[in-house]
Amino acid sequence: MGGTVLNGITSAIEELALANRILAHEGVLDAFGHVSVRHPSNPDRYLLSRSRSPLLIEPDDILEFTLDSEPVRPPKALLYAERVIHGCIYQARRDVLAVCHHHAPAVMPFCIAGKPIVPVFHLGAAMGEEAPFWDQYDEFGATNLLVVKPEEGRSLARALGRHSAVLMNRHGATVVGDNVKQLVARAIFMCQNADYQLRALALGSPQPLHRGEIKMAGTLSAMPNVVTRTWEYWSMRLEAIGGLPPRSMPAKAPRRAMARSARAAARERRKARRR
Amino acid sequence: MGGTVLNGITSAIEELALANRILAHEGVLDAFGHVSVRHPSNPDRYLLSRSRSPLLIEPDDILEFTLDSEPVRPPKALLYAERVIHGCIYQARRDVLAVCHHHAPAVMPFCIAGKPIVPVFHLGAAMGEEAPFWDQYDEFGATNLLVVKPEEGRSLARALGRHSAVLMNRHGATVVGDNVKQLVARAIFMCQNADYQLRALALGSPQPLHRGEIKMAGTLSAMPNVVTRTWEYWSMRLEAIGGLPPRSMPAKAPRRAMARSARAAARERRKARRR
Amino acid sequence: MGGTVLNGITSAIEELALANRILAHEGVLDAFGHVSVRHPSNPDRYLLSRSRSPLLIEPDDILEFTLDSEPVRPPKALLYAERVIHGCIYQARRDVLAVCHHHAPAVMPFCIAGKPIVPVFHLGAAMGEEAPFWDQYDEFGATNLLVVKPEEGRSLARALGRHSAVLMNRHGATVVGDNVKQLVARAIFMCQNADYQLRALALGSPQPLHRGEIKMAGTLSAMPNVVTRTWEYWSMRLEAIGGLPPRSMPAKAPRRAMARSARAAARERRKARRR
Amino acid sequence: MGGTVLNGITSAIEELALANRILAHEGVLDAFGHVSVRHPSNPDRYLLSRSRSPLLIEPDDILEFTLDSEPVRPPKALLYAERVIHGCIYQARRDVLAVCHHHAPAVMPFCIAGKPIVPVFHLGAAMGEEAPFWDQYDEFGATNLLVVKPEEGRSLARALGRHSAVLMNRHGATVVGDNVKQLVARAIFMCQNADYQLRALALGSPQPLHRGEIKMAGTLSAMPNVVTRTWEYWSMRLEAIGGLPPRSMPAKAPRRAMARSARAAARERRKARRR
Repeated sequence: MGGTVLNGITSAIEELALANRILAHEGVLDAFGHVSVRHPSNPDRYLLSRSRSPLLIEPDDILEFTLDSEPVRPPKALLYAERVIHGCIYQARRDVLAVCHHHAPAVMPFCIAGKPIVPVFHLGAAMGEEAPFWDQYDEFGATNLLVVKPEEGRSLARALGRHSAVLMNRHGATVVGDNVKQLVARAIFMCQNADYQLRALALGSPQPLHRGEIKMAGTLSAMPNVVTRTWEYWSMRLEAIGGLPPRSMPAKAPRRAMARSARAAARERRKARRR
Repeated sequence: MGGTVLNGITSAIEELALANRILAHEGVLDAFGHVSVRHPSNPDRYLLSRSRSPLLIEPDDILEFTLDSEPVRPPKALLYAERVIHGCIYQARRDVLAVCHHHAPAVMPFCIAGKPIVPVFHLGAAMGEEAPFWDQYDEFGATNLLVVKPEEGRSLARALGRHSAVLMNRHGATVVGDNVKQLVARAIFMCQNADYQLRALALGSPQPLHRGEIKMAGTLSAMPNVVTRTWEYWSMRLEAIGGLPPRSMPAKAPRRAMARSARAAARERRKARRR
Repeated sequence: MGGTVLNGITSAIEELALANRILAHEGVLDAFGHVSVRHPSNPDRYLLSRSRSPLLIEPDDILEFTLDSEPVRPPKALLYAERVIHGCIYQARRDVLAVCHHHAPAVMPFCIAGKPIVPVFHLGAAMGEEAPFWDQYDEFGATNLLVVKPEEGRSLARALGRHSAVLMNRHGATVVGDNVKQLVARAIFMCQNADYQLRALALGSPQPLHRGEIKMAGTLSAMPNVVTRTWEYWSMRLEAIGGLPPRSMPAKAPRRAMARSARAAARERRKARRR
Repeated sequence: MGGTVLNGITSAIEELALANRILAHEGVLDAFGHVSVRHPSNPDRYLLSRSRSPLLIEPDDILEFTLDSEPVRPPKALLYAERVIHGCIYQARRDVLAVCHHHAPAVMPFCIAGKPIVPVFHLGAAMGEEAPFWDQYDEFGATNLLVVKPEEGRSLARALGRHSAVLMNRHGATVVGDNVKQLVARAIFMCQNADYQLRALALGSPQPLHRGEIKMAGTLSAMPNVVTRTWEYWSMRLEAIGGLPPRSMPAKAPRRAMARSARAAARERRKARRR
């Protein structure tokens, strides 16, 4: 395993920690919800934090899991109960490289009323034409609504199908992406879309974009100037509240030096911003 | 009275001060509202702050009361007018170890319109199947709506019955718990539930979870990884705005040393977070 | 003019600057709106800031006006255009000692739809049984909706009558009080009431408190433990964002010493809070 | 090109950077949206930032464009895709000196439901009697909804006509002004107006101001005491979160000196506020 691979995994872990905090700060995640990424060099593994609120996640919290959602190394900490959401989707969708499960306030009214979220503005098209609706009760009867058994995870993955997101009855939503940055943008824009759709109801019956518009506007968030602009914006908003994650820690470096280099990195970032 | 008991009461007081501030920061309490805990070693006493807004409460503000809501020691400060809410519930419900009375914006529309809050998402099940509705006017005619007389407190406790929460007409809500952390989670999730239920009305007529789901999802907030995750999250959010309460002060320690050790403790907490 | 009078005016000015900032921070005032107090020793004068956004007002901004809303000393700065609101109400209502004119987002839907705000929860009773509705257009035809002419101010004062607040068509509200602290509480609670009333509409037709309840609950905000608690809470919230006004400046003290004593006062306040 | 012209362009650039940040902080702009100003000495040019989120824009980000929306100097950074909105409006409207394109949450429900925003309170009159509605689909069929081709920009400018703002179907709004400060006020007040109009719908059918009122109230935001007050307020709110832009950098000054003078300027501004 050479230096490039090591760098790949380190930067994937750092990006994932940052994605967790961005999604928390932008109102998609709160005490709950989780984000994972498929392992950059081993497609049969994925990376996910130990059980911790997304706003607080650090690189050192992130663990490696098999697609059966078993930790690769014996865990020293509590794990998320709903890991199978991630593992089962990575099994069913080889094209998916990042997954987010959340209970954002913006989508909850739709999950509760059982009504579809449809793209009603250009950036909302990032979610695709529709998000299917999955009711755990239909197949499994009364549960605590958590998706914890492999068969529950597989059922959810089937409901997701080829779509970009799936609504979960009285529970929340699960969103997938081709990469972490696309996933973050899709999750944020889908929440904005849900909020606008709900408030537009007071004025009339909002209709979705035309099918051709959805197809074309759906790729907006992959435009280089959009990716660059949004990622800088969300990161800077986080930095402004002192919320950026510390850097990950190479196994042998003494802690004190790490802390020093984290502070130096923060100084560098601040300086870079001033330039 | 040995060291263990002393530690028990000190830690109960510190947890209660923190719970007050968390509930204020998470939008359940504002200038008003109060939280109490049953005395950890004497079930005929409870602990409650002097009259002060919950966001500002420090361990030194917390006083001991009999179940008749009389202060055990002559108070040097003004007291909450509605202490009987706490005393009467502790008398009627030996199983209840923590009580919160609040006027959270999320529940007020229901208290005003006289409509029930029902669990509409998994975490909302923490409130149980239903919260009864109590109207002070029915039994006592026109009042200033504060619950100040023992007979008013007893009437409210009767309305609460075996439930976990009771809505109070045009006034607010009272929530109970088996312990402080469960109470905090229940109060926060019930407010989220009320908010989602109200907004879901724009889309249709939201139905409650199935009875079996309520029973099973109702214990989610007692799962160890949930308790750990939420308490860390809410505490860290508070710390981020400099809002953690100072530590409580042993009777003989000089003030200066105390301030020093409070700063040291804050440093420790910050360090612990970095690890 | 002895020291006591000087102290009276200094403390009235400091309280008024603080009231401006509290009302701005609690969402009643924004870039616009203003608060005045009747002069503590001369009932034919009132105190009001020069034209400045309330969140930024300092004791040195506060000027003295006659009840005809003329500045007592030639002003060196721009003045609020709508001063007559204050002067005309002080002329018509000898009992009124403080006035606030605002366009709080919470009341605007009612001012725009021409629907009454009525007390729907205990603290909302601070506004009294009803707030009359005034439409400048009825008497003056098309204007820019500002209340700038003495006859406009007198018309508004007539509409206010013996009430505690008056709604102004498509413009905002004006609230009066027996003193600054009561006025601040009344304005804040009336905004909360309007917000709850509007959101309760989604659930049904909210009815006002019973008349006897309004009478009794209407004095809640004058209870000593309520006044103490709310004023501490609102001030501390402001202090937490560094928003407390500087102290007022005696004419002869050098500026440097003043700045020093302001910092010392801030230190004292922080220390007092820790105790 | 003399010193005065240089000063004119420097101060135009600094005002534009500040306007971007104010509009972002006041909730009109987010990761997206942009603001431009016509060049102060060459009416055939306009100034606009490189592709960057408005909250982060610095004077050094601002570039010069021809009215065909081509950068005057070869750009070293990515550019906004929708520059033609600005260029085409400056071509069609010689009276317009500032343009803002945004997707503010407050206007989105109207853009989605296809319903008009009308002035419902005095400050809302800044938008004029009505904002026309433009649907890109009508003329261009399915697109990604971005306005990127010159013919799309010209079509939008035609729809704007002599008005102050135009709504764009399922996309956002574009607002114009006689100068940057008027534009900022108009954009902010129009968003407040949209928010109030939407919430007033729960109470009835809000009617616009009388035509004469719109005409007279429409100039309120140009009153000297209003311009001074709002600009100070919005700037100070931004400064309170450390969000003021750095000063622009003369070509030859060494960076270190610049940073020093930026800090000195910040100190000066803080001092000025204390006075």
